[in-house]
Amino acid sequence: MYNNLNMPVNPDAPAHSDVRADYAGRRAALAGGLPAHGADAIVVSDLINVRYLTGFTGSNAAALVWTGDRPHRIATDGRYTAQVAAQAPDLDAVLARDTVAALLATVADEWTGEAPVRLAFESDAVTVAQFTELCAAPSAAEVELVPVRGAVQDLREVKDDGEIALIEQACRIGDQALAALLDRGAVAPGRTEREVARELEWEMYARGAEAIAFETIVAAGAGSAIPHHRPTGAVLAHGDLVKIDFGAVVGGYHSDMTRTFVLGEAEPWQREIYSIVQEAQEAGRAALHPGAPLAAIDAAAREVITAAGYGEQYVHGLGHGVGLQIHEAPGIGSAASATLRDGATVTVEPGIYLPGRGGVRIEDTLAVSASGPRSLTSAPRALQIL
Amino acid sequence: MYNNLNMPVNPDAPAHSDVRADYAGRRAALAGGLPAHGADAIVVSDLINVRYLTGFTGSNAAALVWTGDRPHRIATDGRYTAQVAAQAPDLDAVLARDTVAALLATVADEWTGEAPVRLAFESDAVTVAQFTELCAAPSAAEVELVPVRGAVQDLREVKDDGEIALIEQACRIGDQALAALLDRGAVAPGRTEREVARELEWEMYARGAEAIAFETIVAAGAGSAIPHHRPTGAVLAHGDLVKIDFGAVVGGYHSDMTRTFVLGEAEPWQREIYSIVQEAQEAGRAALHPGAPLAAIDAAAREVITAAGYGEQYVHGLGHGVGLQIHEAPGIGSAASATLRDGATVTVEPGIYLPGRGGVRIEDTLAVSASGPRSLTSAPRALQIL
Repeated sequence: MYNNLNMPVNPDAPAHSDVRADYAGRRAALAGGLPAHGADAIVVSDLINVRYLTGFTGSNAAALVWTGDRPHRIATDGRYTAQVAAQAPDLDAVLARDTVAALLATVADEWTGEAPVRLAFESDAVTVAQFTELCAAPSAAEVELVPVRGAVQDLREVKDDGEIALIEQACRIGDQALAALLDRGAVAPGRTEREVARELEWEMYARGAEAIAFETIVAAGAGSAIPHHRPTGAVLAHGDLVKIDFGAVVGGYHSDMTRTFVLGEAEPWQREIYSIVQEAQEAGRAALHPGAPLAAIDAAAREVITAAGYGEQYVHGLGHGVGLQIHEAPGIGSAASATLRDGATVTVEPGIYLPGRGGVRIEDTLAVSASGPRSLTSAPRALQIL
Repeated sequence: MYNNLNMPVNPDAPAHSDVRADYAGRRAALAGGLPAHGADAIVVSDLINVRYLTGFTGSNAAALVWTGDRPHRIATDGRYTAQVAAQAPDLDAVLARDTVAALLATVADEWTGEAPVRLAFESDAVTVAQFTELCAAPSAAEVELVPVRGAVQDLREVKDDGEIALIEQACRIGDQALAALLDRGAVAPGRTEREVARELEWEMYARGAEAIAFETIVAAGAGSAIPHHRPTGAVLAHGDLVKIDFGAVVGGYHSDMTRTFVLGEAEPWQREIYSIVQEAQEAGRAALHPGAPLAAIDAAAREVITAAGYGEQYVHGLGHGVGLQIHEAPGIGSAASATLRDGATVTVEPGIYLPGRGGVRIEDTLAVSASGPRSLTSAPRALQIL
């Protein structure tokens, strides 16, 4: 393979929305926060953040955002000349292999203040080795580097309508793909976990997914008790719990859903943990109000499971933000200190895992708003016996 | 989705080899290099490197390797208690969310020297923010942190027989999957790029691929002139060049191969650039001798294309190492300063790209040895008209 292709890089890919995202508005919002960080400008080198701020999806890029009137820029290398012009037509493009150093040089050139320009960088994206190189660049002497964490992630946490529409489209693809699989009886004794996973992915692609959101989880029987089970050649059997956790990507945005089924006939213990998880998930969804402490949302679901005596078998947090990444801010867990923001898109996914026996998880992706949480995934949540 | 699943995390996955890799030998080799870095120990936090040194594939881990007799350790969190015991039974496991800080504490505890212990860390994996946190840890005062780059990557560049066997198995899956597609006429006018890509991936999974090595490239017509084209809904047409770049993963190891076809009938310009690329690729493969300067290997292929007048249309390097990552050391390009090592596995993939018309790339994955390069991919390289 020629290049790193985890990032979509084709400018000719079908547009998923006629409305171009408000990249300039996002950059303005980032610029507006810079004084609070003690910075005059910021160089953004995390590629997902660059995409969010500019629309550019190449595998080598950095973006420069200034306070005041100085021009925002994007840097990438010569492989992407045409692509950057197509995807970020409103930005001057600097062509260089070392994109951050190239932007640093433009900062030093353009600055006319008496004190050194204070240039923020993403300390959670730049490695120690990259930072050391940056400090050794010729322009570095004229620049004061200011470490900043999560400045763009913080903006990304609140989605605009276009972003929510893409996530909803990805969720719909997931809903329909799962329904197609169930309709034709593809989740049944005799199939392997891998076969079911591959067919589900196939159905998502057939419905317009540009990628799979993450490696599809199909976990049957005792395997369903492993929260992060990879599909194996294990054969689905009568009486198994089958946990399916999967998602699609549309326009760079992810969906995330889990459903758990029983094959043939449900035993009482399976019905019991299913109904507890279902109740916990409802409680978690109902707690998704803007301004609610994230830890309280986690607790709303966790208390249901703990009260039923399975607290020790629920070994992870309640959910996470979903967007350009499958896992992003906010993390909804017992140790979270922030509150839920209006416009966030998050998962709610409690589970009970009984080692050696089986597990249940129910997960939806939801949009948070003052008018109440809206589930973007819509497959039935009640226990289905297949 | 519960967790990041880019890394395989299932201890029950089928074994691809009865021979456990020589993890202890790898750690000893790493330890042997530490004095040259001025270090007494190293904490490894890059997850691929942790896997290489320990066999552990969880999504949160770090490894500690000492010079001398002090015990090597692995750290991961409580989700992976069973998995770490199964995958790294020869190592003491420290359970903590912050794996690097936890290992740092054990280093401070175990050190009895008078001078502070010199602990190397991977400066190309640790971010500035992580480093800042590490320096603030209580144990940090007793430790001198030593930045080291690429120490484990350097070991990974030379493959052992078990690694080469896994890469070869992945290559064979790719060969067979492509052959199956061609045999049934699935690469033909009327199909879309996306359909061909998905079917090829399906065939790889059906033959035992545990994952796809990277997003499959199927690029037809003018799209074939884009080196890193993503498959779209574009329909393959009579007379198109069709470039297919793809790979499989087996036991964590990747394969990488590109073949370019013509549909129906080849025009003279297509035959011309194909035969130039084919000749360049042969020259590049023939230049793969241990000890050869990487830049000279690049030049051996590039000269063929440049002499034919297409130097400007060959816009990337000749190849790259392949192993636990699809792109790893060495990079074979005109600016490379190192030499090719005995036991490396690399791609050779020259191309000519004529914007708006079409492009040709031919790529194999080869094992380098003193007895001559051995191609692990074996699909025919001569022009096939489909």
